[in-house]
This record gives sequence, structure tokens and C-alpha cells, in this order.
Amino acid sequence: MTLTADRDDAQVSGPRLVGVLGGMGPAATVDFYGKLVEETAATCDQGHVPVVIWGDPRVPDRSLNLLGRGEDPTPYLRRGIEALKRAGCEVLAVPCNTAHAFVPRLADEAGLALVSIIEVTADALAADGVRTAGVLATTGTLRAGLYAEALRRRGLTVIEPDEPAQRQVTAAIAAVKSGGAEPSHREALARVAHSLADRGAERIVMACTEIVLALDVSVVPVPALDPARLLARRVADLALGAA
Amino acid sequence: MTLTADRDDAQVSGPRLVGVLGGMGPAATVDFYGKLVEETAATCDQGHVPVVIWGDPRVPDRSLNLLGRGEDPTPYLRRGIEALKRAGCEVLAVPCNTAHAFVPRLADEAGLALVSIIEVTADALAADGVRTAGVLATTGTLRAGLYAEALRRRGLTVIEPDEPAQRQVTAAIAAVKSGGAEPSHREALARVAHSLADRGAERIVMACTEIVLALDVSVVPVPALDPARLLARRVADLALGAA
Repeated sequence: MTLTADRDDAQVSGPRLVGVLGGMGPAATVDFYGKLVEETAATCDQGHVPVVIWGDPRVPDRSLNLLGRGEDPTPYLRRGIEALKRAGCEVLAVPCNTAHAFVPRLADEAGLALVSIIEVTADALAADGVRTAGVLATTGTLRAGLYAEALRRRGLTVIEPDEPAQRQVTAAIAAVKSGGAEPSHREALARVAHSLADRGAERIVMACTEIVLALDVSVVPVPALDPARLLARRVADLALGAA
Repeated sequence: MTLTADRDDAQVSGPRLVGVLGGMGPAATVDFYGKLVEETAATCDQGHVPVVIWGDPRVPDRSLNLLGRGEDPTPYLRRGIEALKRAGCEVLAVPCNTAHAFVPRLADEAGLALVSIIEVTADALAADGVRTAGVLATTGTLRAGLYAEALRRRGLTVIEPDEPAQRQVTAAIAAVKSGGAEPSHREALARVAHSLADRGAERIVMACTEIVLALDVSVVPVPALDPARLLARRVADLALGAA
């Protein structure tokens, strides 16, 4: 389902109600909601994007399931999407990269227009003329090929961490989810980002909302992209009719 | 409707789904959601509080309406509360002090248990043995007597800014809502807080979620209470069964 600023129902006026399937994790959803407010040029409450956030942190671990371990998150995700649809949402945003291995099909089922964090980021990289992008993400996101596939379709190449480096990325993500990353996690993430740049990545994609909360971008030698911010910007534009 | 950790239905297990009626303003709701995550002792996503946030920033200005100007926010608030009820929420939290002039009746109507930001704060002041509290709030909150009444019932006295000072408070709140307070707004708020302490306030209640975002508590000579954080703590306890 494609979403443009032209609505099927020309009678409808005012902003679109945005559904946010969040809680994966909660801190990342708070971060996304904050960015959505920041990326909206409003001078009073009433100029902001109306949102409904379904923040269910009980969704089973998306990455573990993609690696063949742990419960299927699909029923939880479907329940959230259906609740957002019932609440009157027209646009769906999911500030969890890994969940995008599951949500496009569920959004289609529900007839909700998904603004994909993966596609929005791939669009931004392509628009910047980038040829090779390094991806920091959960192992599930990498194994599912979410960025590799979206970038391949646009003629870009993906560089991923090697196995020992990926274990450090996974440890940093878990640390953020458990309440905060230690300096050692932050340093490890920075080293992994650096190594991707050394291998030719022109951009680092912080493709897990927890990584954005733990990576010091000032020590990375190439620009680092925040998919959550790109998603927030696109959602604000779509909801308020500027896109 | 009173809410305790003992549920009517002893069969129900797991955390309670919390409904957050937010968007008033959006930045204050982001702030509250962040505090809810911080105030939850969880070591993984799945240990956090499940929430549904109805973030409709189009609700007409609560304070203006209480001053006899502007549209009645009641239908907007009712719509949000009903949507949260339909989504399965059991507990209602509203991170907007001024809205508490309207929401207790609407929560009762919907059969949702409101955790009142006013009552939670008044409880905390009384538990601390405070006799006199200074209140920084919208003019609507003051005129509606929300804190004055809740504190009076507990034997406490309220000190409010005089009229010129209140105009500065109002200007600072509007500045936060329009995207950020200037240093001049921050300094004015600090001066007003200081004057309440000079008049005998043992605590400053930052009784508008925007004030928390703009007041530098380090320059206030008495402790400053953040009702949004007190609300987050109580909601986390109730939702997870610790209260």
C-alpha cells in the first residue's frame, strides 16, 4: 500500500492520525516520539501531528525469532496494528527496524499505510548518491536482509560487521534495553562503526533504534544516519500534508 | 473510581494496560513517557509498562477555556478516553495538569481508573510533612483551584504568583509549546519560583508539564517537585502490581 499526500477521500481535511507501533523497546519509542515533535514545525500544540502509540513492550524478541529461537511476535504485532486501525489511524510507523521483517504484511492485512523505516532510509542514502553503506543492526535485521535488499534494489552495496564485531553490537543493544549502555559498550560500538568505514562504507546506518541511543557519532569518520529521525520527518510531512 | 493493586478480577494476570491521554502538549507527553520508562525497574523490553498513548494535540486550549475564552475541550478529551477504553486500557494517566479540571468526570463516565496527577502530588507533599507549597501552573489550573483544593483537603496552604508574575509564567509555558523557551523565559520562571519561596513556600510544585521543561531547579532555594515524575512512578507501580 503506497501512501501519498493525495488521499483517496478528498473530503477528509486536517492532519492524518498516525499510528505508532512502539514499545520495542520503550526507550526507542520515547526517542522516536520526541523526534516526531522536533521534526514538526509547529508554534502551538494544535499544529502538531496527532498520534496514537501502541506501546506494548511484551512483544517477544524480534531478533531472536528471526534467528529461529523464541516465540513468534506476529500475533502481538497484529493485535497492535489492529488496535491502531480501530482507533482511526491512517498511517502506520514502527520505530523498530527488526520488526520490519514482520510488519509490511500485517499492515497490508489491516489496510494501513506503512511508512517503512527501511525504505525511508534507503531513499535518503540513494538521494545522497551513496554507493556503499555500513549497517549496524540486530543480528535478526541483518539475517532477514532488510537493508541489504532495500539497498540492492537501489543499486547500493551493504557492509556488515564480521561475527565478533556483531556480538559486540548485540551486547550494546541489550545494554540499552536493560537501562543504559556502559562506556565499554559505547566504545565497542564506535570501534565497529569505524571498522565499517575503514572497509569502504560512506555512511553508517544506525539501523536499530537502541544504537542511536548509544553510539557517539562524533567519533565515527563518516556521516551516521538515524533512521528514526528520517522516519519522524517523513511521517510529520505525510501527516500534515507537506509530502 | 479508586484503583488499588487488588483487581476486581482475580483471574487477570500480568501488567495492567495503561492509557495515556496526551498531546497536551506533545513535548510534555514525550517527557512523561520517558519518565515512565525511567521509573520502571526493568532489565529487558518485556518488563516495561504496556501503554497506549492517545496523543491528540488538537484539543482546544484547556486554560483558555477555564478562563471563559475559547472552545470546550471536553468532546476531544472524551473521544480520547473512550478510544483508550476501547483499546483495553484499565488505568488512565493524563500528563497535563490543566486537563484535570475536566478529566475526573470523563474517566468516571468511561469507567476508567484515573491516576490523578494532582492527587499524587498532593499525597507526596503531605507525606513529606509540607505545610505550605508554591504552585507554578497555567492560569486555568490556578483559577480552577485544582491544587488549592487538593492541598486544602490535606491541611496544606497554597501560595500562588501575583498577577504580573503569573503573566511571566504563562509566557514561558507558551514558549515551550512553540518549540523552546528562551533564556529570558527561564530566568523569569526562576525569579517567580524564588519569590514563592521568599513568601514561605517550602516546596515549588512545577504544576504544568511545560514548566518542568523550562525551570532550572538548581537556582530555586527550596525543593521543586515534578508532578509528571510522581505520576510516572505511581503509574509504573500500579501497572506492574507493586503499589
